Amino acid sequence: MTTDVSAGQPATIDFWFDFASNYSYLSIMRIEAAAAQRGVTVRWQPFLLGPIFQALGYTTSPFVAQKEKGAYVWQDMVRECRKYGLPWVRPSAFPRHSLLALRVALVGVQQPWIGEYCRQIMLRNFAQDRDIASADDVGEVLTQLGLPAAQILAEAQGDANKLGLRRQTELAQARGIFGAPMFFVGDEMFWGNDRLDDALAFCATMNA
Amino acid sequence: MTTDVSAGQPATIDFWFDFASNYSYLSIMRIEAAAAQRGVTVRWQPFLLGPIFQALGYTTSPFVAQKEKGAYVWQDMVRECRKYGLPWVRPSAFPRHSLLALRVALVGVQQPWIGEYCRQIMLRNFAQDRDIASADDVGEVLTQLGLPAAQILAEAQGDANKLGLRRQTELAQARGIFGAPMFFVGDEMFWGNDRLDDALAFCATMNA
Repeated sequence: MTTDVSAGQPATIDFWFDFASNYSYLSIMRIEAAAAQRGVTVRWQPFLLGPIFQALGYTTSPFVAQKEKGAYVWQDMVRECRKYGLPWVRPSAFPRHSLLALRVALVGVQQPWIGEYCRQIMLRNFAQDRDIASADDVGEVLTQLGLPAAQILAEAQGDANKLGLRRQTELAQARGIFGAPMFFVGDEMFWGNDRLDDALAFCATMNA
Repeated sequence: MTTDVSAGQPATIDFWFDFASNYSYLSIMRIEAAAAQRGVTVRWQPFLLGPIFQALGYTTSPFVAQKEKGAYVWQDMVRECRKYGLPWVRPSAFPRHSLLALRVALVGVQQPWIGEYCRQIMLRNFAQDRDIASADDVGEVLTQLGLPAAQILAEAQGDANKLGLRRQTELAQARGIFGAPMFFVGDEMFWGNDRLDDALAFCATMNA
């Protein structure tokens, strides 16, 4: 299906994600190719899931707080990654500290490197079992992409960008986001990697 | 794909459900036809979700306890029912009291009427917005199916069957079940209607 842009706005999906979220890993790896197939543009919306969970009464990930659900999730991830042909190593630390990596993502949301940056951060977390917290961790990913790591890290940690990420999280909360990944097509909300294809199909239909 | 029964055990999926659960509605309506297509036998496993949620610290359905998630779920159900071609009316009472209807299901698990009985109870709850709690409610469904309602209701409310349903719920807890619908293929656990097709595919592969 192609999108008839002349019929209205270009088809756009808002993609809310946190690098700490294992189901966001699946969507981050898949979304650019899947969206391109349907003529849909991805708007990357990094945010911090932690404060959202805290407001819902969780002190950590629900997958950690609920032992049974947590055990299931790792089983499910093995099968899901096999289904999508993605590498998978269960992280020895979960959820990983994602604040700096998300701040860098916010710097990149309008840049051509955003998709590949997000994929490399997620592979590091969920396929290589490596930390993504420090400037060294994130800088290594940026450098590998041929980007000016020091300059981007400085911008990411500047006051304006810090405030920007805080605003993203507040906006997520205001929109009723309670988990990740979350997709919006206009006001229509779709929760979880399991709904990515439905969200893209809906998006393409809305703009056809 | 067909199942080569001579290769081992007949392919069987254990289907754990509660009539109070809206996502169980989707699976109850779909599972017999989907399983038949893959040569898989359904083993119906009614249980009470309430005590499981209580043990996890919920005093009601998580969809009621978490306002944001609850609002989302009803939006999701509209889309999911459209996707599967199922009727849908948001129940004015949720979760509905399902104890008696589940006791009757336990009476029927080995009977040819189990599938149609479960579908009619679920349509009553999620497509007709009618109660499923009383002997009149459940008896009406049984009578419509041409079954001896009084006799089945008496057996359902006998001590042995009451104990049987309690044991089902204990078994569910012992197996690590934390929600519904839940599917088991051997020891492999699959959670939610979103995983029904994966569970059936896995089941067919295991026994091919």
